[in-house]
Parts: sequence; structure tokens; C-alpha cells
Amino acid sequence: MSSITLPRTGQQMPLVGMGTWKIPNSECADVVYNAIKSGYRLFDGAADYGNEKEVGEGVRRALSEGLVKREELFITSKLWNTFHAKEHVKAQATMQLDLWGLDYFDLFLVHFPIALKYVDPAERYPPGWFGADGKTVHLQETSLQETWTAMEELVDAGLAKNIGISNCQGSLLCDMLRFARIKPQVLQIERHPYLTQEALIAFAKEVGIAVTGYSSFGPQGYIEISMDRGAQSLLSHDLVSTVASRYKKSPAQVLLRWSTQQGIAVVPKVTYEDKWVENLDSLSFDLSAADIKALSDLNCNLRMNDPADIDVRMSIFA
Amino acid sequence: MSSITLPRTGQQMPLVGMGTWKIPNSECADVVYNAIKSGYRLFDGAADYGNEKEVGEGVRRALSEGLVKREELFITSKLWNTFHAKEHVKAQATMQLDLWGLDYFDLFLVHFPIALKYVDPAERYPPGWFGADGKTVHLQETSLQETWTAMEELVDAGLAKNIGISNCQGSLLCDMLRFARIKPQVLQIERHPYLTQEALIAFAKEVGIAVTGYSSFGPQGYIEISMDRGAQSLLSHDLVSTVASRYKKSPAQVLLRWSTQQGIAVVPKVTYEDKWVENLDSLSFDLSAADIKALSDLNCNLRMNDPADIDVRMSIFA
Repeated sequence: MSSITLPRTGQQMPLVGMGTWKIPNSECADVVYNAIKSGYRLFDGAADYGNEKEVGEGVRRALSEGLVKREELFITSKLWNTFHAKEHVKAQATMQLDLWGLDYFDLFLVHFPIALKYVDPAERYPPGWFGADGKTVHLQETSLQETWTAMEELVDAGLAKNIGISNCQGSLLCDMLRFARIKPQVLQIERHPYLTQEALIAFAKEVGIAVTGYSSFGPQGYIEISMDRGAQSLLSHDLVSTVASRYKKSPAQVLLRWSTQQGIAVVPKVTYEDKWVENLDSLSFDLSAADIKALSDLNCNLRMNDPADIDVRMSIFA
Repeated sequence: MSSITLPRTGQQMPLVGMGTWKIPNSECADVVYNAIKSGYRLFDGAADYGNEKEVGEGVRRALSEGLVKREELFITSKLWNTFHAKEHVKAQATMQLDLWGLDYFDLFLVHFPIALKYVDPAERYPPGWFGADGKTVHLQETSLQETWTAMEELVDAGLAKNIGISNCQGSLLCDMLRFARIKPQVLQIERHPYLTQEALIAFAKEVGIAVTGYSSFGPQGYIEISMDRGAQSLLSHDLVSTVASRYKKSPAQVLLRWSTQQGIAVVPKVTYEDKWVENLDSLSFDLSAADIKALSDLNCNLRMNDPADIDVRMSIFA
């Protein structure tokens, strides 16, 4: 199995894709173009990453050279918090599609269940978490239902094949299932052996929502932005290394396979070709049930990405 | 400090009240009447407890004898899951007020952010979790916003002075703050040293929502219904006993004071007079900061009351 079938559309979502957060803008086009050459079909972007234009450039180059057809790719992007009001969702999705140079997204996600005051993209883009002073968070009273209704209209308009949500807990997901006309197809959450989220994943599976785990390497992606909470690296963790050497695989491959073998898609970011080939190749072996359990036993509910760190009023994981 | 000031109404909510879950119907009236004599002013009931009429009888006896005035009491009740549709909320609140024999609730809470298929009270009351077969859960697609709008109308109609929600996580509470015209005044959650919920409480404090903790004794209340998960009792826990003997207080008083000293109201259930006097008296001493911390360090996120145990589609704590 190398993909997940999304229930509503029957579309295949690859189990291993490439995340684009923090890929420097100057490298995006080449990285993405070459990743497609190496066999990547899913790219996971977001307004907030500030590099959709450059990522899209790599996609377009591959398409125009006939390396892949559009329908062979699975392109994900995300709606930023400042665009949650119903009057901004479609305009924003359209703007993001323009940046990518595409007609539709395969998946468009609400990035966070947090609504912030609108920022005109002409003024500042991506707008980030703070207001003009660079330090104040301006919440906006737009319900998730209002945003979701506008997301559903993107599906109606053909701008997104599938819609979903990222960074969402069980209680709010329960409510979405009550108010949604088009149920979320995908839930994207932080997931690694320090944050296994078993209960949330069991719930998503039960109600037919596919799960993508981000930050598969745990603290790794957060070191360069000083948000790693001083946690021990998973890539150099003794247990992970021991398991890796037993299978003659890399620690990264073990961490990815730990998720994909449980049916959770992953979107690791890598900018070096040998690594991205390695990550894609992580589907080529199976971990024993005992090794999966041993890795899961590292769980300590350690979350790297928590907006409450920025402002306690955004306690979406409390 | 023996009460919390509710921000919207300025009303005082006592820090120590009496919970009425599992008080046998035959004892309710006397327990409540005598508890009022002993100084209790807050009673915490719910449709689901199936004893509102009998609890109300104790309240009415005390009122009619002039032991207290209505405005000196703080009466809480809760809307059950089967009454979440907008057309049922007011009828149900009115019916519950009739059972109590009162004109208004001081606080009316959404018991769970879960909507179940309507059950006519004439058919079965309280309706519980399951359908007529006694084992199937029938979810209903009523959004929390629809329910909350109807709850707000109870305030408008004078049937509830304050409204709030129980068993709610951060993400859904964030959404409520976005869609609510009348913000929730109180959040009632399971809370004891095995489940300290620091992040949720910090969030509630920041946004001006008072917190009531239920199940202050942890597994204790769940033993008789075999839902204690085999956890070690807190009332006989070594640390709790050691702290208690140092202050010459009972373990129960230590567990209650651990919450109230942090500004969290409690609603222990007791049916023996010596215990209920003891619980009420738990406000009469202070724990040291070090003891509060030592108790909090018992936290292991152990939750007793989780509807996902009944049906994984009700994963409101995932």
C-alpha cells in the first residue's frame, strides 16, 4: 500500500509526500522539480509557508516537460487563519491557485481552527500570527462553521477536490461532523513517537477521515526556529537507531514507516536529493509489531507546534 | 475566598457545593435539606442524574421553612445530549425547572458537547446514552452552535442566570467564544491530581470563564459503577494521606482544597452528614505551594469519564 483512498472522492492520497515548510524560496522550484523526477507525487504547501509561487514553479516545470500529468499529482495547500471569514475563503484559494499556477488543489486544509483579523495580502503576505506591530494577536469571531461552509463551496466550484482540517482536536472534529455538508476528508496533525495521538487517530479512522502526520521527526524541524523544547532528537534516539540498524534502514525511514505502516500519511521536508529518495523509499520495508509498539511507547504527549505558546487564547490543544 | 465572581452577571458561585450524581432518589430530599442546614448553598444536578425532583424537594423544603432565600442558593443543572436541537432546549429546561420546583437555574450547563437523537421524556427519562435497544448510540447532527443559541435564549427568558458547558476541550471552547453571543460563564470538567488539566484551566482563566472541577476524589466516584479503571484511590494515596496528617485534615479535605485554593470550584457528593460538613469545612486551611505542586505532580492524564469508551464516535477528549 502506497496511498490512502479518500472516501468521498475515491482519490488516492500518497502515503509519502514532501512537505514544503521552510524550503528556502530560492531552492523550491528545483527541489520540487527534481523530487517529481525522483517519484514524489504529493506536495504539501500552505499560504503561511510563503513559498507557494516557487513550489508551484517546480510543479509547472515538471508538468510542462511532460514528466507527470496533473492528475498524477496530489497538491495540498492550506488556508491561513486571517482568511477565515466567508468573504475571504474563495478569493484566497483563488489567489493561492494563481501562485501555484494550478486550476485546483487536490486537498485544501484549514491550517488551524483559529480565526485572526483579516490582513489584505496586498499589505502583507503571508500575514503570519501577529498584527502590524509584530507582537499582538488579533482574534476574530468567525466560527469554524462559517469557514467550513465557505470551504465546501470551494469543492462545489471545483477549486478543491477534497477539503480537510489541520491541528484539530476530537471535540471540535465531532462538531464539524455535525455541521458539515461535506465531511472533512483529511485531518493533518503533528505526529511522531513523542506524540502518538492514538485516540484521535482511532476516532478519525472510525468516521472515515484520512490522517496525515506532520513533523514525523519530532523536534527535528523545530531546532532551526528554536522551538524544539530541548527534547531529545528522535533521529539520534538510541531506540530509533537500534531499530534502524536492525532493518539496515536510516532512522528517518524508521520514523516514517512507523506512521505509514499504521496507515498515516507523512509529508517530510528534505532538500537534499539523497534524503528525499531515502524518505520515499521508506515504504519498501515493514517494521515488526513489537518495534512499532516500542516506538509508540516513547509517547509523552510532547507537542512542538502549539499556538498557545504565542497567545493562551489560542489554546486549541488544551 | 469562598466563592467565584462570575464575570457577566457578577453573581457569586460558591467554591464548595454538593454534587447530586448517584444520591439515591429516596435520600435526596433529606440530604439536600440537611446540607442546606449545614451551610451548603450550591447544588449541582443534571437531567441525567434522574433525581432532580427529589433534590428539588429538599431545596423547596428549606425554602418554605425559611432556612434560606432563593437568591442565597446557587442551583446548577445540565441539559442532556438528547435535547440539543433548538426546538427542545427551552422545553427541556422548563421541564427540569418544574422538577426542581424553581423559576430559574443559577447555572444551566450543556452536559456534553455531544448531540444524540431526541427521546421524548414521556417515553423514557432520563434517556441515557443508548437508544431503545439499550446498546446503540444514535448521534444527531445538531451543531453545538445551534444548541448554544438556544441556551442563550434561556438567559434572555430568565430561565437561567448563567450558562456554561461541561466536558469541553480547548479547541471547541475557542470556537464557542467565536460564535457565542453570551459567552459561557462556567466550564465544568473532570479534575483531580491524576488529571490536572493545567492548560485548559489557564485558558479558561485568561478568557474569564470560571472552572468547576468534578470527581475531585478521582477514581472514588467510579468504583461503584466499575469505571474506576483500576486506578489507585486518591483518598488512600500515601502522598495525600501524608499531606492530610501534616495539616490534621482528612484526605478528602486536602483533595478539595488542592482545587479551591487554585480558584477551581468543587462539587463533591456525600450522603453522610459528617462527611459533608468536613467537605464544606475544607476552605478553612491553606496548603503550602510545595504541597499543591506535589499533588499536581501526580498528574498522569487519567480520565475516568470518557464517552469514547461507550462509542468511539464520541471522542470528545481525543
